[in-house]
Amino acid sequence: MTIPKTHRRVVLVRRPPGEPAESDFRVEEAPVPEPRHGEVLVKVHYLSLDPYQRGRMRDAASYAAAVGLGEVMTGGTVGEVVASQHPDFKVGDIVEDRLGWQEYAIGGGPALRKVDPSLAPISTANGVLGMPGMTAYFGLLHVGQPKPGETVVVSAASGAVGQVVGQIAKIMGCRTVGIAGGAKKCAFVKDELGFDACIDYKAEKDLDAALRAACPNGPDVYFDNVGGEITDAVLRNINFFGRVALCGSISQYNATGASMGPRLLGTFVGKRVMARGFIVTDFAQHYGPAMRQMGEWIRSGQLKYREDIVEGIDKAPRAFIGLLRGENFGKMLVKLA
Amino acid sequence: MTIPKTHRRVVLVRRPPGEPAESDFRVEEAPVPEPRHGEVLVKVHYLSLDPYQRGRMRDAASYAAAVGLGEVMTGGTVGEVVASQHPDFKVGDIVEDRLGWQEYAIGGGPALRKVDPSLAPISTANGVLGMPGMTAYFGLLHVGQPKPGETVVVSAASGAVGQVVGQIAKIMGCRTVGIAGGAKKCAFVKDELGFDACIDYKAEKDLDAALRAACPNGPDVYFDNVGGEITDAVLRNINFFGRVALCGSISQYNATGASMGPRLLGTFVGKRVMARGFIVTDFAQHYGPAMRQMGEWIRSGQLKYREDIVEGIDKAPRAFIGLLRGENFGKMLVKLA
Repeated sequence: MTIPKTHRRVVLVRRPPGEPAESDFRVEEAPVPEPRHGEVLVKVHYLSLDPYQRGRMRDAASYAAAVGLGEVMTGGTVGEVVASQHPDFKVGDIVEDRLGWQEYAIGGGPALRKVDPSLAPISTANGVLGMPGMTAYFGLLHVGQPKPGETVVVSAASGAVGQVVGQIAKIMGCRTVGIAGGAKKCAFVKDELGFDACIDYKAEKDLDAALRAACPNGPDVYFDNVGGEITDAVLRNINFFGRVALCGSISQYNATGASMGPRLLGTFVGKRVMARGFIVTDFAQHYGPAMRQMGEWIRSGQLKYREDIVEGIDKAPRAFIGLLRGENFGKMLVKLA
Repeated sequence: MTIPKTHRRVVLVRRPPGEPAESDFRVEEAPVPEPRHGEVLVKVHYLSLDPYQRGRMRDAASYAAAVGLGEVMTGGTVGEVVASQHPDFKVGDIVEDRLGWQEYAIGGGPALRKVDPSLAPISTANGVLGMPGMTAYFGLLHVGQPKPGETVVVSAASGAVGQVVGQIAKIMGCRTVGIAGGAKKCAFVKDELGFDACIDYKAEKDLDAALRAACPNGPDVYFDNVGGEITDAVLRNINFFGRVALCGSISQYNATGASMGPRLLGTFVGKRVMARGFIVTDFAQHYGPAMRQMGEWIRSGQLKYREDIVEGIDKAPRAFIGLLRGENFGKMLVKLA
């Protein structure tokens, strides 16, 4: 194939205090770089949009470095090696890496890994068989530690992580309750993914009552993707010896200043509740067996997934803004090639 | 000794919505009961006043039953067997049990245990060698899991639990920072107990700055006895992979309605913070070795303790109200005999 001279990429030009606008990003032309020794040139097929990327737009201490102004936005990618100076990768290989919001990129760091396109569509390397899938797997099983017969509640239940959490919880023999926004998402979560119940937080006036109705025995494990009022409601109702896997707080990512809510840590004492924050890379040395297990569940039909795909790098900013608003329906991807 | 016909006891007569008043309790005369088969009559020497007793005054679901109106207030006791129908206990034995706010009481349940008065003053069976001491031991070591060189922060640092937490943390090789109210308590915590630093939360205008100054490497473990604004400040400053042992929330026990504060659970994600509530009885099967270890530390002079003792059962309500206000200075006890 012919490698073009230039490509398009999305750079961060302004750090929004609240909700990002399209003007906080710039789509620009840039020369396609050439790989040096130990590097590959990747033509990106899919760019992964994920809530954590909002954190990278802040100029604040975090577990990972911020994106600099004028720099390419960070993001997971699946693509095809189109030129290689790396002994382990050849032209035509499908690879996954975090190469950012751009059409072509240089890879070769420790995160570069081959993807077997015969196992599943390659987009899954950014989803159920990638970072979001591993997040669901380790957050639920290692942090949440569900036991058969227990009740697992997961927020953002139709999202990239939530949909996997609930299905693994079902496989583990748990009652599984999703929380999602809108009737369509709730119907998908129940009817397609097999959750036992799904609470539409946009329609419910009394989340506590809805939780009590959906969880007759109370929640034992809460996998939290959203924070804020939804999480407050689950924590008010969580069972004795409940476990909270803190994965994300998307409801707070665009907040300006401190978000206030009821102080609920005191209720953890008598109930012996445990809450633990985690980042998927903490479990990196265990990815191999988890990937194989997830692959088996996909092939057996026990694990389904839904993607929400837009086309074209110029659509990435708008799609990302929508993701933070919960407008996506399934794993948010940008198809580039 | 002669057993009197009547004794005094304190019953709950009203459930206060906020701060208790002395009129919520009644000191009354009652017949001294007689032990039946398998029971002992105990003359109480010390009554333990502890923050958890505020929870028993509420008519709400908790990990333990509420005290009924007209019933004797619950509380730990150390006393002397004055009559016995129990094969394992004889007159003169010193025993610890949770027999309530009264001068004489029937014991014989599973919590009744002998205290060896040759090891330490018997009042310690309600303190450093009793429930508060075990709370400190297991909360710090099992929940907080401090490592040598780490920084441990404990609130209510001069209290029954806090003073023990900090001293065990020092024994474990940690930098130990207390938080207490007032210069006298802070001086005691530093100069007598050997904490590395103590923050006077009543004098400090900027708790965050005080924490940063007292914890140059940041807090790794936070043992929380107080909740509320003090806990918010520690959580804002806690280190990556920090652990929070949730023992109590005394600042909230008299609160009417929900106490509001910043939502900080979201910050646990990137920092991988773990918070876990616990109740000391969860560790009951491990008390034996822990008691022996604590006894050794006391005899070697590594573990000191301070008691705050009032005399007379009629003083219990006022002392308890003061305890909830932080007016006590050390383990709060009522001496009865």
